[in-house]
Amino acid sequence: MESGIVPTTVSHLLHLLRHTCLIISLHQMLDSALSERDTDTDLSQSKQRSPSSSSSEIAMSSTAGQVIKCKAAVAWEAGKPLVIEEVEVAPPQANEVRVKILFTSLCHTDVYFWEAKARDIEHTLSETFENLGRHHCFLAYLVMKLEGIIVESVGEGVTDLKPGDHVLPVFTGECKECRHCKSEESNMCDLLRINTDRGVMLNDGKTRFSIKGQPIYHFVGTSTFSEYTVVHVGCLAKINPKAPLDKVCILSCGISTGLGATLNVAKPKKGQSVAVFGLGAVGLAVSSSCCFYAKKFGVTEFVNPKDHNKPVQEVIAELTDGGVDRAVECTGSIQAMISAFECVHDGWGVAVLVGVPSKDDAFKTHPMNLLNERTLKGTFFGNYKPRTDIPGVVEKYMNKELELEKFITHTVPFSEINKAFDYMLHGKSIRCIISMDA
Amino acid sequence: MESGIVPTTVSHLLHLLRHTCLIISLHQMLDSALSERDTDTDLSQSKQRSPSSSSSEIAMSSTAGQVIKCKAAVAWEAGKPLVIEEVEVAPPQANEVRVKILFTSLCHTDVYFWEAKARDIEHTLSETFENLGRHHCFLAYLVMKLEGIIVESVGEGVTDLKPGDHVLPVFTGECKECRHCKSEESNMCDLLRINTDRGVMLNDGKTRFSIKGQPIYHFVGTSTFSEYTVVHVGCLAKINPKAPLDKVCILSCGISTGLGATLNVAKPKKGQSVAVFGLGAVGLAVSSSCCFYAKKFGVTEFVNPKDHNKPVQEVIAELTDGGVDRAVECTGSIQAMISAFECVHDGWGVAVLVGVPSKDDAFKTHPMNLLNERTLKGTFFGNYKPRTDIPGVVEKYMNKELELEKFITHTVPFSEINKAFDYMLHGKSIRCIISMDA
Repeated sequence: MESGIVPTTVSHLLHLLRHTCLIISLHQMLDSALSERDTDTDLSQSKQRSPSSSSSEIAMSSTAGQVIKCKAAVAWEAGKPLVIEEVEVAPPQANEVRVKILFTSLCHTDVYFWEAKARDIEHTLSETFENLGRHHCFLAYLVMKLEGIIVESVGEGVTDLKPGDHVLPVFTGECKECRHCKSEESNMCDLLRINTDRGVMLNDGKTRFSIKGQPIYHFVGTSTFSEYTVVHVGCLAKINPKAPLDKVCILSCGISTGLGATLNVAKPKKGQSVAVFGLGAVGLAVSSSCCFYAKKFGVTEFVNPKDHNKPVQEVIAELTDGGVDRAVECTGSIQAMISAFECVHDGWGVAVLVGVPSKDDAFKTHPMNLLNERTLKGTFFGNYKPRTDIPGVVEKYMNKELELEKFITHTVPFSEINKAFDYMLHGKSIRCIISMDA
Repeated sequence: MESGIVPTTVSHLLHLLRHTCLIISLHQMLDSALSERDTDTDLSQSKQRSPSSSSSEIAMSSTAGQVIKCKAAVAWEAGKPLVIEEVEVAPPQANEVRVKILFTSLCHTDVYFWEAKARDIEHTLSETFENLGRHHCFLAYLVMKLEGIIVESVGEGVTDLKPGDHVLPVFTGECKECRHCKSEESNMCDLLRINTDRGVMLNDGKTRFSIKGQPIYHFVGTSTFSEYTVVHVGCLAKINPKAPLDKVCILSCGISTGLGATLNVAKPKKGQSVAVFGLGAVGLAVSSSCCFYAKKFGVTEFVNPKDHNKPVQEVIAELTDGGVDRAVECTGSIQAMISAFECVHDGWGVAVLVGVPSKDDAFKTHPMNLLNERTLKGTFFGNYKPRTDIPGVVEKYMNKELELEKFITHTVPFSEINKAFDYMLHGKSIRCIISMDA
């Protein structure tokens, strides 16, 4: 199947190449997602439901220092539907913040862990579900991007935030003290870098969640499938309180990753061509940021590797007179990574890897591909520092430099959170917003 | 064996790391080259022997348009000593320049081709000697870096150069018209990129050299082991006529490659650590440019991988609290390339590949090493554009920002050119200058 959002012939494409982005999709997800767009919720009628800062501040201050009982979606068993339970949420300790969740969402990584495929991932991920599941009930607050979050109370030492502030929790943090945080280039904080094994808070090595006193574990430091959660202050980006929480919540994960992979890492120049491998939310964010960059809707051609009997990098090189200027890999497939690198032009081409690979993958290429002046880079969360940079990304949306609505294909109430998993599993949604108070 | 130019303990090294360069040598070539420094020639007494522009212009104009008979070193058979012969050098055709060579030199790549190991190199190199050698006598003007060149006459269409100009011929060219030449990033000219197979001039597909009418072939477009040679104007960098030709001649190849690999590609910041794999001339130029950058003589530690029973990248990571900031690979060994990449720090580390690999090599690493925000790049001739940039490198030497004398360990007269091969083969020289009129 081959389809273009802007249908083009190859000659038209070649003409366009110097003036617009070339977005090459190896997955047809966008197409199916758009054609099967769910109509349960009329997004045009969605309203901003977050309380004003003043009212929320008043409402929340009464609970400071106390255990809060609230609803949370608990993953009792890998791959089985989450169960809405009443949980106890302890007050925040030093450098922690307790926040009220208004809107959250989920992404492929959440589904991946929920399915307990984590053991295929190197380093951090392998034993999470097995360890926790064997000894305890476990709560996988599967969170990658979320917002509609309002600070309820803050722990000792927290000076940046106060009750009522609007924040975006991010699955990776920024302590502002380590070498990575002090580097202009890195966002891989030594203290708060994503850790999918931990499940507990840094301050005391314990969880803030329980059900009738029995500990329930955090997931990637945020755990937002709960009406209230406790997060390290370094994982909270304080944002413009006027930003609509049901839209900007998706900036906590894949959308910012794709945006940053383009703007911070690939850095295409005006008029250059960009190949995007994989059109999930991250790939679409890459495309979107290219388009913004080129001031034009930029998808000119889809290439499906299955339609060709030679490596897709060769197909792309033929289409583009030697290769694209930039390529961004958003699938995690090792073959797509290699193709993304080998399809960039010699002399100046830059390939950026975004997708998370499997444990046993090996990136393999002939070194002459490098010596011919190609660059290969990888990125984590689009190289954005959560606290320093994400507020600025929210401002991009507020200034209409960034369109988020097109990523939000579905909205469900918290009670129907398992529908969001279904949509993701079956490739029906790009992003599904989960509304906590609906 | 482990030795440091500036001896340090590990703790001293760790202290120095933030203030100076860490230069890690995997080859001990510098050490042996320095200790076995040839004393045939007292370099301190070497004099500038190039004629002044005015006298050379007068002398040369009389030969314009005529065949010149002169001496050249001919490689009749792979691996066998060159033979000084009398050759005929035809006048330059369109976009060509005939030049008089005063000083030349050779590098490992010359020796590599002379030994006919070329068949191991991918793409360009495999059949040069076999094809030419089977059907013809062949002349391997083994040239990688050379100067002391003065324009004798110019062909049709050459407007940039006139008789008497001082030039550096470079093994790769710059047409100034193609996409690569017009790109700010690339120096891989479509027209004049290194081609070790060609052996003839572009204008008519024929050679300008002959012995008694029998064609003798060019090598990499320069062929400077001859008193006169013909070069495409795009391969000639016009330089400051005051620059001493017996010094700046080495800027046509490895020294500029190492310098550019650092300054144009790796771009270390002040105080960052740099690991250099391989201390031949290129690696030493990298070290030298780091040192200039850091305003300090920077070699703090040598690591010999044979001294350790674990991968050298792990040894380096331990020495440097997680990895170096930059690594430059100058050996061409695939294992050194992989080590150079894997020894850079996550978050900001940049590895640059310079050494030429073998045909069947595969660069292989786990993609997480990239996703953790490491960058892998390659460079060709240090990303310098020969005509645009090399005159500026000569100015660096003239302004004492660059020390070339320390690379020149030997000087021999043209009649003893085979000595230069011996020095290189036995690891005794860094650069040996061949003086044509001595």
